Amino acid sequence: MADAPDRSSEAPDDAIMRATYRALSTHGYAGLTMKRIADEYGKSAAAIHYHYDTKDDLLEAFLDFVLDRFKDTVHEVETTDPERRLELLLDQLLVNAGDYPDLLIAMLAMRSQAPYNESLNERFQQNDVYVRYLLETVIDQGIDAGVFADADAEHVARALMTIVDGARTRAVVLDRETALSTARRAATEYVAATLGHRPER
Amino acid sequence: MADAPDRSSEAPDDAIMRATYRALSTHGYAGLTMKRIADEYGKSAAAIHYHYDTKDDLLEAFLDFVLDRFKDTVHEVETTDPERRLELLLDQLLVNAGDYPDLLIAMLAMRSQAPYNESLNERFQQNDVYVRYLLETVIDQGIDAGVFADADAEHVARALMTIVDGARTRAVVLDRETALSTARRAATEYVAATLGHRPER
Repeated sequence: MADAPDRSSEAPDDAIMRATYRALSTHGYAGLTMKRIADEYGKSAAAIHYHYDTKDDLLEAFLDFVLDRFKDTVHEVETTDPERRLELLLDQLLVNAGDYPDLLIAMLAMRSQAPYNESLNERFQQNDVYVRYLLETVIDQGIDAGVFADADAEHVARALMTIVDGARTRAVVLDRETALSTARRAATEYVAATLGHRPER
Repeated sequence: MADAPDRSSEAPDDAIMRATYRALSTHGYAGLTMKRIADEYGKSAAAIHYHYDTKDDLLEAFLDFVLDRFKDTVHEVETTDPERRLELLLDQLLVNAGDYPDLLIAMLAMRSQAPYNESLNERFQQNDVYVRYLLETVIDQGIDAGVFADADAEHVARALMTIVDGARTRAVVLDRETALSTARRAATEYVAATLGHRPER
């Protein structure tokens, strides 16, 4: 089945996505070519072009692939207790991110290209709206339930995403462990300050 | 004088630095070539190569050029009153950054390349150490003077830089004004929470 190019371009081929990830990790965004992706895929560039006309098409599909998986992960946080749910969301955003260092590098490279690529830009914007919506919803639920202090939920969600994006950038450029643990602690301190919520741990 | 290539490579030519900045702004890191820098410079690629052997040499000099100017800016904060000094440093890091949107874009592109380029990586690390040192020093001074609550100054400085780097990344990918104003407000809230310092405004 891996040899038969029988999938339409709407159903991105996981093997090509993984090959793109490996090529991005090895060569960086600036060194990414269809040839190198094909080498990682173990096939000819023509096999890649069968699915994706251009490198931009492939990168858009790759970003969708990554962001969809990321959405699945944050969606997995199933508890409805607002305090616990907010802690688990922050763990997903700030602790589990460290499990995929190459992905942090690849995502930062794609983010840095967003000003020159409207499709990438739209995808990052939509993802940010989605995650902020999850945060804002749990904050509003906590305020309504009386477990969080009254607060500007929209601002608190944006501020937490600022800490998250700072951690993601610093994890690439500086020491990864320190970047993520600093941000996790800062997020807890910020939540305590704005929502009056003190986590047990 | 502008025509005479009489400067050594230790004294980077401001005109080439400005041309590099324009080329980065227009074409992005991935589209940056010596030819495009030479076009912006208004001369041949040979004129650029006279000063810089390779594109990497030129980019290192460019990053030094930008980080030196950035250091000059934060160094300008002259007041010794700890509360006021911390506010002014955060203004430099989070408000004035919005004056140079193309620079935020260029710097993010270079940061995303840091994992593949040891020289860029070292420069970003050194700059982070320098700015954290400034923040930590003013925090320690405020603690010693009794105007700040006792706190882990090193952690607070790292947390503030996480907010700063989050703002820089978000300013490139999302709405710039919102990214910077959210981060400035979050920094004030974070300082109040950890240092017990409530700014007058």
